[in-house]
Amino acid sequence: MARSPHILLNAFNMNCVGHINHGLWTHPRDRSGDYNTLPYWTDLARTLERGLFDGLFLADIVGVYDVYQGNVDLPLRESIQLPVNDPLMLVSAMAAATRHLGFGVTVNLSYEQPYLLARRFSTLDHLTSGRIGWNIVTGYLDSAARAMGLAGQAPHDERYDRADEFMDVLYQLWEGSWEDGAVLRDKARRLFTDPAKVHEVKHQGRWFQLQGYHLAEPSPQRTPVLFQAGSSGRGQRFAARHAECVFISPPDKATARRTVQSLREALVQAGRQPDDVKVFMGTAVVTGRTAAEARDLYADYLQYASRDAGLAHFAASVGVDFARYDLDAPVDYQPGQAIESARRSAQEHGWTRRKLLQLFELGGRYPAIVGDAQQVADELQSWIADTGIDGFNLSRTVVPESYEHFIDLVVPELQNRGVYKTTYETGSLRHKLLGAGDQLPQQHAAAAFRRPTGS
Amino acid sequence: MARSPHILLNAFNMNCVGHINHGLWTHPRDRSGDYNTLPYWTDLARTLERGLFDGLFLADIVGVYDVYQGNVDLPLRESIQLPVNDPLMLVSAMAAATRHLGFGVTVNLSYEQPYLLARRFSTLDHLTSGRIGWNIVTGYLDSAARAMGLAGQAPHDERYDRADEFMDVLYQLWEGSWEDGAVLRDKARRLFTDPAKVHEVKHQGRWFQLQGYHLAEPSPQRTPVLFQAGSSGRGQRFAARHAECVFISPPDKATARRTVQSLREALVQAGRQPDDVKVFMGTAVVTGRTAAEARDLYADYLQYASRDAGLAHFAASVGVDFARYDLDAPVDYQPGQAIESARRSAQEHGWTRRKLLQLFELGGRYPAIVGDAQQVADELQSWIADTGIDGFNLSRTVVPESYEHFIDLVVPELQNRGVYKTTYETGSLRHKLLGAGDQLPQQHAAAAFRRPTGS
Repeated sequence: MARSPHILLNAFNMNCVGHINHGLWTHPRDRSGDYNTLPYWTDLARTLERGLFDGLFLADIVGVYDVYQGNVDLPLRESIQLPVNDPLMLVSAMAAATRHLGFGVTVNLSYEQPYLLARRFSTLDHLTSGRIGWNIVTGYLDSAARAMGLAGQAPHDERYDRADEFMDVLYQLWEGSWEDGAVLRDKARRLFTDPAKVHEVKHQGRWFQLQGYHLAEPSPQRTPVLFQAGSSGRGQRFAARHAECVFISPPDKATARRTVQSLREALVQAGRQPDDVKVFMGTAVVTGRTAAEARDLYADYLQYASRDAGLAHFAASVGVDFARYDLDAPVDYQPGQAIESARRSAQEHGWTRRKLLQLFELGGRYPAIVGDAQQVADELQSWIADTGIDGFNLSRTVVPESYEHFIDLVVPELQNRGVYKTTYETGSLRHKLLGAGDQLPQQHAAAAFRRPTGS
Repeated sequence: MARSPHILLNAFNMNCVGHINHGLWTHPRDRSGDYNTLPYWTDLARTLERGLFDGLFLADIVGVYDVYQGNVDLPLRESIQLPVNDPLMLVSAMAAATRHLGFGVTVNLSYEQPYLLARRFSTLDHLTSGRIGWNIVTGYLDSAARAMGLAGQAPHDERYDRADEFMDVLYQLWEGSWEDGAVLRDKARRLFTDPAKVHEVKHQGRWFQLQGYHLAEPSPQRTPVLFQAGSSGRGQRFAARHAECVFISPPDKATARRTVQSLREALVQAGRQPDDVKVFMGTAVVTGRTAAEARDLYADYLQYASRDAGLAHFAASVGVDFARYDLDAPVDYQPGQAIESARRSAQEHGWTRRKLLQLFELGGRYPAIVGDAQQVADELQSWIADTGIDGFNLSRTVVPESYEHFIDLVVPELQNRGVYKTTYETGSLRHKLLGAGDQLPQQHAAAAFRRPTGS
């Protein structure tokens, strides 16, 4: 499969107030506090479709960020992903307001019943006519485990082992329970479904036992488009087996290039093609009609951004309470899996809390691109050329204007350069992102669970 | 709380093809096969709002009806609640298409994580601006237990004991974790939430352990409107403690009257008022511009209805494979909890399979009311007067025409008689159904889990 000639583009958002660029909810024009109302989301979906975005990528977290200062005071005051509502509940309203936009929704599988989660995604794939994707995560917060009545999380690699089996169960339900052609809707013969083509799944594994028929008939994509963001070695092996899109958040181009190269090698080792996975990178763009206008806007935003909130978020990701350190004392923490590159940087450069805070100038850790349309387009193209990524997850700064500026200014520039689509293709999200069929290709692990038609 | 002067009305539906009145999907005008598309549901929601329906009540089932003939052949052929999609995924699209319609959605709590289910309902209560309700069920299918990796279900009464504790956990999250006034959205003071007013829930019970903050900020109703349909003694005790609306499906007025009276007595024993719960009865209405037209339409429908499918559905409800009996042999089965009244009738009258099949003339077990608008209105009013119920869950026959006929013909007649609203009240679903505030009243069990403001 060839590299896409067009830059792929997701809006990166979350069913909460403060997502990545913390503190900007306090900007006078920011409307992220309306996250709990439907028009906020249906307006956003229409805006993104106007900008021909491939998808809206919705993050999620189960649990709270109680590492920094050992409590949730700052997360509550700054609304650092708390409160946070369920992202799956947003999809059908946004799907009804759009025709082409895809939806990549994060669900932590660690606390889900596979039988029920399979039906939930099948339902959304039906209702969206094949526009649903799933960002598979296994969670990393002890507070989540405690909320489920557990003493703590399973060890990191074991979470991925269990997730592998979870996926196999889902593939059996999505790909193997109902054959193509099972559903006839034949009124004259009183035959809605041909029973000979529906099969009971029987799974006896290490973590899961299941005996049952998938409750949903086959949906356009059967398996949702699979997103993943694991950056550890084990996480990347998981991605190499399952993912079709991978989300990375590198601090610099060198890290991005290494990550992309290592992922593509892992794909080949897993029996897939190096380009079977599209890589999206997290970035924040602040743009204006002129370079000066963009710089002024960025300076304006900086007054509202919260570096403390950014660091509190990061502290939970790596499991270290940086608030315990004096501003200029060297920070020292156990290696976390979540953000290996940042850990490496800190170890190499001997960072302090003061230096760490500088990473979060705009309240978040993603590289910010500031400039007029030409400058932003140049920078986006150079990331692609220099690192081998396929596109971007665009974080929001001040909403809705950060989306509107990008769509009104940068999208036309990218289109003029011939590196961004000028109209949507028809078909499923998988077809639009991966360029092939609506369903997973034969070289994907899920295909092993299919039954030949008429089996 | 006084009896509502108006008949309450829910449409009864399910995210599947064959719901109650089985076989009618084969009618040439029936569109229920479009259940997996969004316009089917958004059109339905708008139609119901045109008819000033209080709510759309969505059933659900986890598992399959594999009792009749010991397999799922007939359920698949006749689409007897199989395939069946997730009902919660429909809500936000329908909420965006309406302003007043309520949504009562069935979720089986037996296989859910309380921490995650609490957030799901809070999210929907936010997005619907307080129009969400939950029909609490504990499940009754062994096929569901097997799909969850269990050898079988817990015993009936134990399921309700566990459900009681599940509800207590939810009440702590919904009512006790975030105080009124905790969320300030104060940009000037950089204070989204006041940490002093958010509390960690710590629950150590027999079935559930949980330590965590509710992830969602308080929604308009906090706790969704609680529906319940338990008909056993234990089920009714559960309803008396929790329910605000109860759904019954009696075969006749005498049974309805006894059930309503017993429920209201149970309410008093539980420390609530006898009218604290609104009772909805399942019924199917076939109407026309004249009595003759209604009779003709009914005769037309009968050609497509499936008694076998109705009996197969019933067989799963009571756990008896009636297909094992000759048509005229006396049926003999262990008492099931699900449909006690039918069990009693069968025992009293010595039913056979042939006699049982007559119960399902229109493919389903609910009393069918056939007539012109005057006749239907008379019959609805007489059920209310004779039994003490408050309203109806109207099952669908041929969709969408069964809704449209009712709205175009019966609703105006009821309005002319002054027994049906002519406009929606504003406010939450709870306010509209129960006539009081948006949140649960102080005499409800959930109130014990509230914290005094400023605690």
